[in-house]
Amino acid sequence: MQQCGAFTLIKQSSQCGARLGKVYTTRGTIDTPVFMPVGTQGSVKSLSTEQLIELRAQIILANSYHIYLRPGLDIIKKSGGIQKFNSWNRPMLTDSGGFQIFSLNGFRKIKEEGVEFKSHIDGSKHFISPEISMQIQKAIGADIIMCFDECTPYPATYEYAKNSMQLSLKWAKRCKDEFYKDDAKNTQALFGIIQGSVFEDLRKESALKMQNIDFAGYAIGGVSVGETKEEMLKVIDFTIQYLPKNKARYLMGVGMPEDIWEAIERGIDMFDCVIPTRNGRNGQAFTTYGKVNIKNGEYKDKFEPLDPECNCQTCRGYTKAYLNHLFKSQEILAHTLLSLHNIHFMLKLTKIVQEAIQTDTFFKVKQEFFNKYYSKK
Amino acid sequence: MQQCGAFTLIKQSSQCGARLGKVYTTRGTIDTPVFMPVGTQGSVKSLSTEQLIELRAQIILANSYHIYLRPGLDIIKKSGGIQKFNSWNRPMLTDSGGFQIFSLNGFRKIKEEGVEFKSHIDGSKHFISPEISMQIQKAIGADIIMCFDECTPYPATYEYAKNSMQLSLKWAKRCKDEFYKDDAKNTQALFGIIQGSVFEDLRKESALKMQNIDFAGYAIGGVSVGETKEEMLKVIDFTIQYLPKNKARYLMGVGMPEDIWEAIERGIDMFDCVIPTRNGRNGQAFTTYGKVNIKNGEYKDKFEPLDPECNCQTCRGYTKAYLNHLFKSQEILAHTLLSLHNIHFMLKLTKIVQEAIQTDTFFKVKQEFFNKYYSKK
Repeated sequence: MQQCGAFTLIKQSSQCGARLGKVYTTRGTIDTPVFMPVGTQGSVKSLSTEQLIELRAQIILANSYHIYLRPGLDIIKKSGGIQKFNSWNRPMLTDSGGFQIFSLNGFRKIKEEGVEFKSHIDGSKHFISPEISMQIQKAIGADIIMCFDECTPYPATYEYAKNSMQLSLKWAKRCKDEFYKDDAKNTQALFGIIQGSVFEDLRKESALKMQNIDFAGYAIGGVSVGETKEEMLKVIDFTIQYLPKNKARYLMGVGMPEDIWEAIERGIDMFDCVIPTRNGRNGQAFTTYGKVNIKNGEYKDKFEPLDPECNCQTCRGYTKAYLNHLFKSQEILAHTLLSLHNIHFMLKLTKIVQEAIQTDTFFKVKQEFFNKYYSKK
Repeated sequence: MQQCGAFTLIKQSSQCGARLGKVYTTRGTIDTPVFMPVGTQGSVKSLSTEQLIELRAQIILANSYHIYLRPGLDIIKKSGGIQKFNSWNRPMLTDSGGFQIFSLNGFRKIKEEGVEFKSHIDGSKHFISPEISMQIQKAIGADIIMCFDECTPYPATYEYAKNSMQLSLKWAKRCKDEFYKDDAKNTQALFGIIQGSVFEDLRKESALKMQNIDFAGYAIGGVSVGETKEEMLKVIDFTIQYLPKNKARYLMGVGMPEDIWEAIERGIDMFDCVIPTRNGRNGQAFTTYGKVNIKNGEYKDKFEPLDPECNCQTCRGYTKAYLNHLFKSQEILAHTLLSLHNIHFMLKLTKIVQEAIQTDTFFKVKQEFFNKYYSKK
């Protein structure tokens, strides 16, 4: 039996860095490249477990920060872990809570020991250190858990980025020590997170030193924080050459369909992003022929599916005109139907890429995808 | 082939007025007694068509007033009717719009010709007469449509109630004339509505004179408007003795589980009510062992289904603790899951009653139901 978090490389594209693989977890195996829908508070917003299963989502993500504050670890422990609690009996990943805490500008204080912060819910004071983050994530019980790091803000001076990256390295070591204190490694995997902002030497140093500590997989963090798309791609390029081939690579918080293609081309295996659900709730759908804002008046009498090439429940069952009506009438079903479609779109996108890697036609399929995606039908 | 709206009596209880029947419509046959979930704006709030099909809902209701104002008849006509528009390709019923218009206190003016009112959406002025209501409901295209009447407010003086009932009679005649102007009768059925407030002689007069006009089915209106439960049951008793056995009887806007039992006992076949969805969105669930307000703190660590004797998707998949978390975290999935459970509860309730009528054990089964329903488990 493989260790939780272990990566198997199935096929390497001959054309680029893209690769087909599998990530083993205690609750099931994930086919990569994979898109992970985000269940911020333990639940992918507006979707039921049944709908996620029908969508064939293989793994979902939850935010430790949110779960820790509400319902709290006591409830999660009593229920027997997050997957018992939310009845998603399949692979899950939790982030460390760091990203949310560092977003609480003015409500948090960073020290080497850890971070003090105030809850966004009730203003209560809390302290999280690398050790406490591990304890929290062990209690939550997801299959893959993440090191507690400082997500370096953008823009950052070289000096800030360097100090921040080195702090994250120290914290990573402490995370690993805490993680291996008991036998959690048998049912959970700990991934390290590479930082270093947009600076090549810092990304290299972080990538190499994280490997010295040795983790089950590696994430590229500190992206999708305001940098340009070009900078984000450079960060991947700077980093990925120093990452081992035999472990999973996870680009945190990304992204848009175009980002996913570019990142997979460079060798990324795992993605998560709130965009499919957040934009869905705002009326934006991703389709084969580009983005559609279903709230626009032009759709009020368009009796055709959102995406003519999609076979999700929303596209099989409903027209643009009806979805437009649901949004205008403030029916929450609109949020569900667009979130469902957008997640289906992202999952289908990764299936298309997997197939392209399998048949070694990455660039041809990519070109076909964008010919349609950028042509308004 | 039977006429749309035709009622077949399958079995009459030997114990009380309860009866088992079928209502034929162009889009399918409905087993009665039946509970009709309400899709105010064409959509049962927070539930998808797929979820309603899984719930085995046989017929849903929509409000003409809402559909008329938004998306408007032009869109509905272009789409090919409401069931093409909302992709609910099964029986539907529309009300006349009267109930909503008469609720717009201060925004409407009643004349014999019809009612002037202002839209609650944008304040625009509109006029609806019996003839216009028929035209609207024909354009919407539901299988069963309702006469335009004045829903007599409660309390009403005898004189007000009498004049109001007589106005509704005149309007009913005009509705029928308009309805039969073309061949809509082949695909739609028109039901009359009995008014008369809480006054026995007025209810009798209304019931008999409506039959002189002759409709496909008869509704008891002007209930669930603030009267006591005892008064409502008396209204049913006053009225139902004068209704024909060979036509469906529909109690409008009712109700709670206890009301449904009492009304079926007196011979009612059809019900609609927003309570399962509205209360669901507020956190109230109907269960075999009574009502549960899932937002209460006592449920935060109850790792058991809402209703131990329910096999709906919500009860199969989720615990009270998780539903409590979803409500506290303001996840709209909470609305969906409780609405789904509550509609399942009402549909299951009518199945239980159907079975009790079939086996002629109405009072035994009713007693068993309430022994549980009123015992907090």
